[in-house]
Parts: sequence; C-alpha cells; structure tokens
Amino acid sequence: MDEKKRDDFNCLEKLSKSELTVLASDIRADILSVCLKNGGHLSSNLGVVELTLSLLKNFKPDTNDILFDVGHQAYTYKMLTGRDIKDIRITNGIAPFNLREESPYDIYSNGHAGDSISTAIGIAKAKMLDNDNSYTIALVGDASIENGISYEALDYLAAHKDLKNLIIVLNDNGMAISKNNGPISKRFAHLRNSRFYFRTSSKLGKSMSKHKLTWKVFLKLRAIKDYFKRLVIKPTVFEALGLKYIGPFDGHDFTSLDLALEKAKDVASKGPVLVHFITKKGYGYPLAMKDDSGDFHGVSKKFDSEVKGYDVSFMALKRHILLSTMDENEKIVILTPAMEKGCGLEGVFEKFPDRCFDTNIAEEHAIIMASGFALQGYYPIIDIYSTFLQRCYDELIENISRNNLKALFLVERAGLVNEDGSSHHGIYDVAMARSIPYSKVYMPFNFQSMIYIKDQYIKADKGPFFARFTKSAPSFINLDKEMDEIIFLRKNNNKSLVLGISCLGLDLLRSLPENFDTALMLNLLPSDEILDKYHLEEYENIYLYDPYSIQQGTDSFIAEYLFRKGYKGKYKGYSLPNDFITFGQEKDLLKMTKLDVESVLDMIKEASHD
Amino acid sequence: MDEKKRDDFNCLEKLSKSELTVLASDIRADILSVCLKNGGHLSSNLGVVELTLSLLKNFKPDTNDILFDVGHQAYTYKMLTGRDIKDIRITNGIAPFNLREESPYDIYSNGHAGDSISTAIGIAKAKMLDNDNSYTIALVGDASIENGISYEALDYLAAHKDLKNLIIVLNDNGMAISKNNGPISKRFAHLRNSRFYFRTSSKLGKSMSKHKLTWKVFLKLRAIKDYFKRLVIKPTVFEALGLKYIGPFDGHDFTSLDLALEKAKDVASKGPVLVHFITKKGYGYPLAMKDDSGDFHGVSKKFDSEVKGYDVSFMALKRHILLSTMDENEKIVILTPAMEKGCGLEGVFEKFPDRCFDTNIAEEHAIIMASGFALQGYYPIIDIYSTFLQRCYDELIENISRNNLKALFLVERAGLVNEDGSSHHGIYDVAMARSIPYSKVYMPFNFQSMIYIKDQYIKADKGPFFARFTKSAPSFINLDKEMDEIIFLRKNNNKSLVLGISCLGLDLLRSLPENFDTALMLNLLPSDEILDKYHLEEYENIYLYDPYSIQQGTDSFIAEYLFRKGYKGKYKGYSLPNDFITFGQEKDLLKMTKLDVESVLDMIKEASHD
Repeated sequence: MDEKKRDDFNCLEKLSKSELTVLASDIRADILSVCLKNGGHLSSNLGVVELTLSLLKNFKPDTNDILFDVGHQAYTYKMLTGRDIKDIRITNGIAPFNLREESPYDIYSNGHAGDSISTAIGIAKAKMLDNDNSYTIALVGDASIENGISYEALDYLAAHKDLKNLIIVLNDNGMAISKNNGPISKRFAHLRNSRFYFRTSSKLGKSMSKHKLTWKVFLKLRAIKDYFKRLVIKPTVFEALGLKYIGPFDGHDFTSLDLALEKAKDVASKGPVLVHFITKKGYGYPLAMKDDSGDFHGVSKKFDSEVKGYDVSFMALKRHILLSTMDENEKIVILTPAMEKGCGLEGVFEKFPDRCFDTNIAEEHAIIMASGFALQGYYPIIDIYSTFLQRCYDELIENISRNNLKALFLVERAGLVNEDGSSHHGIYDVAMARSIPYSKVYMPFNFQSMIYIKDQYIKADKGPFFARFTKSAPSFINLDKEMDEIIFLRKNNNKSLVLGISCLGLDLLRSLPENFDTALMLNLLPSDEILDKYHLEEYENIYLYDPYSIQQGTDSFIAEYLFRKGYKGKYKGYSLPNDFITFGQEKDLLKMTKLDVESVLDMIKEASHD
Repeated sequence: MDEKKRDDFNCLEKLSKSELTVLASDIRADILSVCLKNGGHLSSNLGVVELTLSLLKNFKPDTNDILFDVGHQAYTYKMLTGRDIKDIRITNGIAPFNLREESPYDIYSNGHAGDSISTAIGIAKAKMLDNDNSYTIALVGDASIENGISYEALDYLAAHKDLKNLIIVLNDNGMAISKNNGPISKRFAHLRNSRFYFRTSSKLGKSMSKHKLTWKVFLKLRAIKDYFKRLVIKPTVFEALGLKYIGPFDGHDFTSLDLALEKAKDVASKGPVLVHFITKKGYGYPLAMKDDSGDFHGVSKKFDSEVKGYDVSFMALKRHILLSTMDENEKIVILTPAMEKGCGLEGVFEKFPDRCFDTNIAEEHAIIMASGFALQGYYPIIDIYSTFLQRCYDELIENISRNNLKALFLVERAGLVNEDGSSHHGIYDVAMARSIPYSKVYMPFNFQSMIYIKDQYIKADKGPFFARFTKSAPSFINLDKEMDEIIFLRKNNNKSLVLGISCLGLDLLRSLPENFDTALMLNLLPSDEILDKYHLEEYENIYLYDPYSIQQGTDSFIAEYLFRKGYKGKYKGYSLPNDFITFGQEKDLLKMTKLDVESVLDMIKEASHD
C-alpha cells in the first residue's frame, strides 16, 4: 500500500461539509459522463456518492475492509481508491464490479447478490482470531438484503453476537432493481413514515446542527417522539432477529452520515450492527431519479438519446411468442427473480398481471415456487439470466427433475456478456445441465428456430427444458431449411463437417468454403437416438464451434458421444476454456479466446489440411 | 382416491380426545419399533404424532394438500394415509421421505431442507387461479425455517398477502438437528418464557377446557397477561416481516392443536398465516427426549443396544487427521452446515471451539463465510454431505474459484447412501466439479490414501479441493504400494487395464485375474499432464468402475481424455446412470444398477473376450 493513497484518505477527514459536497458533485459528473459513454450502473452509483465518501472518511480502507454487495455501486469507491474510471467496462479498462486482481482495496471479487455479509462474517471472525481490531463493513442494497443468503448470514449473525467490529451498512433506495416487492422494503417504507428519520434538513436536524447537539440527544428526542407513536411502530425484521439496528439516516447528508457511522463504530465494538441509510437512486440526475421502473439501473451506451432501442432482439421475439402463447393457454405462468426489466418482460407483466410473478433476487425460491405451479398442472416458465441459474443446480435436480415435473427456462444472457465480465458470463449452464436428469438444452438463432424450440418444449415429457438466448441480436438470415435438432445447411458428402451454434455459429458456417458440410445445432445436448440419425461417423473430420459455453458443455458432450460410438475420424471443438474470462467488447473477448469467426475459420481450414 | 381412505379421515373427527391419545401412543409404538428395526429419523417422528393426527383431522388430505419440509417427520402421515411402514427404508419398501410415486397423498418428493413453503406458495397461487378453495399447508421444522430458501419464501409471502388458504405450520422442537444456534430458535426460547404459551395442562388451559372457553377468550386473557409483560415481549421475526403469526401452542395437546388449527383456518381465508407449535423431539421415548445432542436424529439399526458404534469409519479417520492437523496449524478453521454430528465432528468442535463453526442448514452461507476466512489467510475446511453441496454450485464458482481462493471440502456420504434414497445419494458432485474452474476431486480408500490426499491439498494452488468419503467402512487392506494419483496394483503389460475407485473399486481390482492390469484412482479428475504419464494408450482395452458417481463424472471425463488423445483401443465405463436411484440396502442397489463387484467382474471378463 503506498503512502500517497493513505494521504488521500486523510484528506477526506480535513474537508469541510461544503468541500465534500463539491467533491461529491464532481464525482457525480464523472459517473454520469462515463455511463453515458461506456454504459454501466448509473442510478445505483449516483445514489451512493456521499455514502461512499463518508465510509472512506470514517473507515480508512488502508486498514479497514469495505465490501460491496454485487459491486454495481462501487464507482465512487474505485475513483477514491486510485482508479480512473473513464475506461470502465472497456477492454483492458476498469472492471464493472470489484475485482481482487484490480486493486488491493477490492476486498473480494463480487457480482452476484447477497454474498457480502457472509464474506464479511468470515473476515471479521478471522480478524478476531488474529486480534486485529480493524473494521469489516458490508455495504448491501435493499434488493440484495432480501436474498436468501443475506438472510442466512443475518440469522447467523444474530446468534453470534460476539462478532466484533462488523458493520452492515444498508443502502436503502426503496427501489431495488425496479420496484421492490419484498416485505423488508415495505417495512422500510413504513419506517420512513412512522419512525423519526434523521435528516439535517428536517426541523430537528437543523436545530441539532445549529446547537451542536449529539447523537445521544437525538436518540432521546426520538424516543420521546416514538413514544407517542408506540402503537404504530414495529421493530424492523433485523431487530426482531435480535440484531442491533440503528437508523434510518439520510444517506446524502454528510452530518447525518458522520453521526450514523460514528455511532455504528461505537456499537460495533460490542457486537455486530446494522446501520440503515435512505438514499435516492440516481441522486443528482433528474431523469434517473424520476425513474421508478429500473430503466436506468443498467444503461447501455448513449442511452440518453435512445432510452429504448428499436433493434430486434431475442427478447423482443421472445416477448412476442410469450404474449401469444399465454393468450392461448391459461395454464402458463411466468416467474422471474427480479429480472422483469432485464429479461424484457414488461409488456408481458402488463398484459397478464395474474400470471406473472417477480420473486425479487430469490432464484431458488423462484424455481421451487415454479415447481409448485407444475404440481398443480400449470406450465411454469422461469425467465432468468444464465449466470444466476447457477444458484439453482440443486433445485433443478430435486424440485424439478426428481419430482418428474416439466418447466421451461428462458436462459437469458447465455454466452459472453461482454462488459459485465467474469461474474456474469453465461457460459456454465450447458455443462451444469449435463448432469441434471431429464434436462434438455436448446439455443435458437432466429425467430423461426425459436418457434421450433417452443414446439419441442411442448412435446417434452418432463425435466427442465432450457432455451438459451444471447444478449446479441438474432440472425436475419432465412435459411430456407426445415428446422430440426441439427439443421444441415450443406450436405454434399464432403469429408469434413462443421457444427455451429446460434448466430456466431451461423456466421462461421456461411463463411466456410464448399468443401465443408455444415450444420447448425439447435439441440445442444441431443440424445444418442437423435444424434445417430445424422450419421456423423461418415465424416473424416468433425469440427464444432461453440463460443457460448465452456468446453465441458456441448463440445465435450459431442466428443464423448463420438468416442462411445467408436468414431475413428478426427474431432476438434472450439469452445471457451473452463476459466474466468474478463470483461470487454465482444469482438475483443472473442479474439482473446481465439473464438472469433475469422480465427476459427482459419484454424478449421488449417486443421483439415493435415 | 378410494373411498376407504376418505372414511378413515372422517373417523378421526369422531374420536374423542382420549381415543386420539390412545391412537397416538399406538402410532408411537409402531414408529419406535420400526426405527429400532430399520433405522430412521426416530426423534423427529415421535415429536409430531399428535400434530399430524390433528392436521389430518382438521384438513382432510383428500381435498387439502399437506407438505412436509424434508419429510423426515412423515412416518405418522404415511401410516394414516394407508401405508404400512414396517418396511420403511428397506429395499422395495416404504420410502424414507415423501415420494410422489408412492402415494397420491405425498404432494411433492422432498428430502432437502427449506423448500416446502416455496412449493406451497406455487400450489396455493395455482389454486387461486383455479378458484380452488382447498388449503395448502407447509409443515416446517425450526431448523428448516432458518434456511435461506425458507426466508426467501417468507419474504415473498409477506409481500403477497392476497395469497389465501395457505398455512405454514411451524413445528418447533427447539432443537433443530442438534443444538440450534440461529436467532429464530433463540427467539422461540424467549417466546416460551415471555409469551403466554397455550397448554391445556396449564392452569388457564385447564379452566378453559373445564368452562369450554373459546379462542377469543384465550386471546383476551393472553392480551391482559401480555400487557404486563409489554416491555419484554418483542414480536417474532415473522410478525416483523409483516406475516400473520399465531402461537405458540402445545403441539402434543389435542385441544390446543384443534384450537390453533381452527384459528389458522379462519385467518388463512384472509391471507397467509404461520401457526407455531412447540413440540418435544422424541416425545414419549425417554431416552430420545433427554437427548439434546442429536444422537437420535437419525438412528441406525439396533441403536438401542449400541448407541455409538466402534467400527472404524472414514469419519473416525478423518477426525483423527483433523485433530492433529488443527493442532499443528492455527490457521485451519472448520465450517459445517448443521452437520457437526452427521459428519462426526463432535470431538473436533470440543477440542477447538474457537475454530469450528456450525452455520445451521445454510450451505451457501457456510461456503461464502469460508471464503471470508480464506481472504484473511486462513485455511477453511467445509464438512458437508455431497447431496447438500449441490446447493453451492454458484458459490463454489463465484466465491471460491473466481476469488482465487483455496478451500478444502470434505464431501461426506459420497456415492449411494442406501436407505435415505434418491434425495440423498451423493452421486452428482464429481460431474458438478468438472465445470468448476480450478477444482480438484479425490477419493480415498483407506487411511494411507487419506494422508496422501491431504498432502495433495496442501500442495494445491487455488480452487475448491474436494475429498469424497463414502458412508461405508474404509478398506483394511494394506496395498504395500506408494500412494499416487493413480496407483497401479498390477502392471504386467497386459492388454487390458481396469481402473477402480475407492473401496468397491479395490474389491473389484483384487478379484480380477492375472491377465488384467489394475489401477486404483485417487484423483478422480486428473489433468492431462498427470494422465499422460501413465500411458493409458498402451492398453488395448480400458475399463473403469465407478459405483460412486453418475456417468457424467469420472467415467465421462476419462472417455473424453482418451478421445482427445486419439486413443484407438476400446473403452468401457461402469458408473451410475444420470437418473434417480431408489432407496434400499447397498447390495440391492448395486445389483439393481448392475454395479455390484460380481456383475462388473463378469461384464469386464466378457467384454475382454470380444
């Protein structure tokens, strides 16, 4: 750790409230400009500028550990710990979330919701064993805190009150990703109204700062006020669990922030404490502040001029199919874990409010709830990002397959997700599905293939049926071929066959010279019965191009099939390594992994010359 | 549904309290005798006899749905819904948990904790869409309700109060599996003391039943009593979440049970309700009632005469290694999700109380907390059943591997677990590990191999390191060979090589005639670099015997390696199908899957003749 950084943090302490306010607005301008340019989590980052400044002022990160849940709100932190965020989300730039490799100030590499408190508990307990008195702070949003893992951690914490110097900072913007449905957030809404909420802009706050009254006075005054409200004030769920809770405080007001964090520090010396701040997502940027639908949660480049794109996406096509299918069949229900917006389901939720369910960031609950619907003869559809589906391996096996139920999974953001990087690439699900009994996995490349896949789902007997979609646009090419599990585009008795998957696969297949037979796989894990009828054994060389999954997915699956069948020719698969792939622009990532169409084309041509 | 069954349920209604008491004690005798004979979850089943009788009396299962969380407490239910449990847990007998295939009264197939409320929510919502007014009841224990999925479901429920005719029955024996550490259970303990807890055996209860007072009177009287205790009584976490809560009630007293369930029925017509019963695990069997360590949670056959066995097990050997290693290295910590007893860690917890952590049934939290320890330079060891490790696929990838951390997983009950059946077989973890970056998987067969595996873990760089143990006894055979990733037992330039795994593997290898080379794999997913040095390509035939995993594990892994290396010989693996395997005695299950040593021996001999 270099001296300069430590100096910077000391600097914060010396700044006056008005200087801090200027600094905050400067940081906010940087965040806004970089999000306009590079895309990113605009609203959440605008909401925590003052909170982050105060955290760094009160808990210097050269000795204390500040953990961000998810990490989509860490831009201010990144800047203040010496990183220039102008290249955030850009190849070779600054990572979209926290990343240990990037900075010693990034305590852990995050990305998925709900894991910061558990991580902080491990760290804090280790420190106690080491007689290290520094603080461990988990900054959690009101969406993440409703995830089951957060609850497990709070439950653990409430039973282990000996854990010292551990502070949970709840950043409550009352919105979660889009509207938040959970009771914790409802309780917060209640708190805002019924409980005396500390703001220096309030009358009492003003007189307190004028008369330099202390926290103790504040609490006394609050107790008096609360006394008269006794009948309506209920303790928070944290208090009911038995956790120390202080708040709520205004998370944009430096006096309030200092007061709260000082108090938290004091309480934490005796045991774990949760300190509750109320912030406004998008604070300082009117357009984002007014947004309560989550439009500004994650923004793509140039969102200002075109908040909604009009390009055709898999999402738009999916929505179209869903609307007509749900209209025809009243037994279809849709569940999504906080991804109504991310999955482009707004229109569907509007049209069928009774049959659409947002479970918040509770993936496991969503899938088990879906199994309940299936038990009653319904057809549940679960719309979920590939990377978050990883949370449900056990539930897919136990609650869907072992119960002989049928469920359709729309697996969004399958393949590389580019700017969001290693925590979000949707590249494991096919490998995961391989060891789930009765599972089927398909991937379309255009509308027509989506309809075909839908029909296969209808015919399917039981088990989870996964339809994977990439973030990028579907192909416009009309193949003029009948859809099939594997669609042969060219079948001229060539010696070599190239198998491709989805859009990039199609691009490659169409680039290949005449001396290659080519086929597009819609079914990514076909049964022997299906594969046998294509007589792959007739080829001397078989190549597979799958830039959407790790090697343990379709690539390894086909290898194993061929081996089992005693295939004597050559087989070579081009797929992603079973490793973590960084963030960056799609073309850069494909080049980096040598999986861009051109590279694979060259490699296949060369290999077939051997 | 046949008439007779429905008649039976009506019968319950006609029984007097004393007749019900006689029935309960008769059922209890049956449970006791069957557990003595077949093993099983004795304590939990003894604890819910009256509760189950009352549930069936108040909610007839021909129209209503009663879901059991985990299902280890469903023996009474099984009996009352027409099943003779004398062959429970025995091959072709009655299943240890609920199983849809077994009875139309088993609403879903359970086994893993925390999924009943989510399932019930799906069912109840579907019923509402169908205008079906029947009740959906989830019976959850105080251990399961602290699992993250239960919390997610409660959180969802509290925000969806329109869900009608859904009742959560909390069966609180204050003990969970062994001692329960969570705050919910602590809160319950508090409730027992501070809140007026309804028992007809209490003074008020006696006078109520004498004077035939109603629930309304009870509530009024309680309110008066509570009034004086206002300062100490806090609402439960359920109430703080905003859920309707009634209780606690004596779960062994029929008057109290009827009162509570009638009230719950009434409340549920307006929205979801949680009704809280206090029961005593092992009720009616003094030895089990006195047990607060969990000895009687799951019992093996003939436990009465030999509560603790003196056979050498992998657990005993593991404990021995752990004790010495933890003594040498202060940076080692152990975490286990409610499996201190199940994993045989009692002695370790006693000796190193500061470095042993029981997280309750919170697998995800346990693993993330372990990652926190690793971030602080500790060496976390997670002791967990294979089947529950399935819950952590995402956390293994994100919190361990992607954070470049090292963690040792002691994977208990790997392979077939026999009597516990399809929900508990530990047969997926190797396949799962294949797609987790940096993971390593080993399986010992005796003490010496355990020490070797420990050394490999110490040398390992990063990622999850899995050491798998079967439930059955380790081998006593001293190989007189140096331990290695793959140990060649016979290397005579034979044409055929047979690879085996762990104890059953060793049995097979030792049964093979001289014309087979034989080797035991300790490393179940060796890298190319390791495999290359054994020159497997020199064999004309290679056979693999893995009765501990599905085909997608080592079997498929080796096939793929050989294919990639252009192996021209014959390969055949004998492993478990990617399907659900029933419960029963080990030898029966092995015969059923044709994976007993004799069958595989015959198949290999025959195959090598071709």
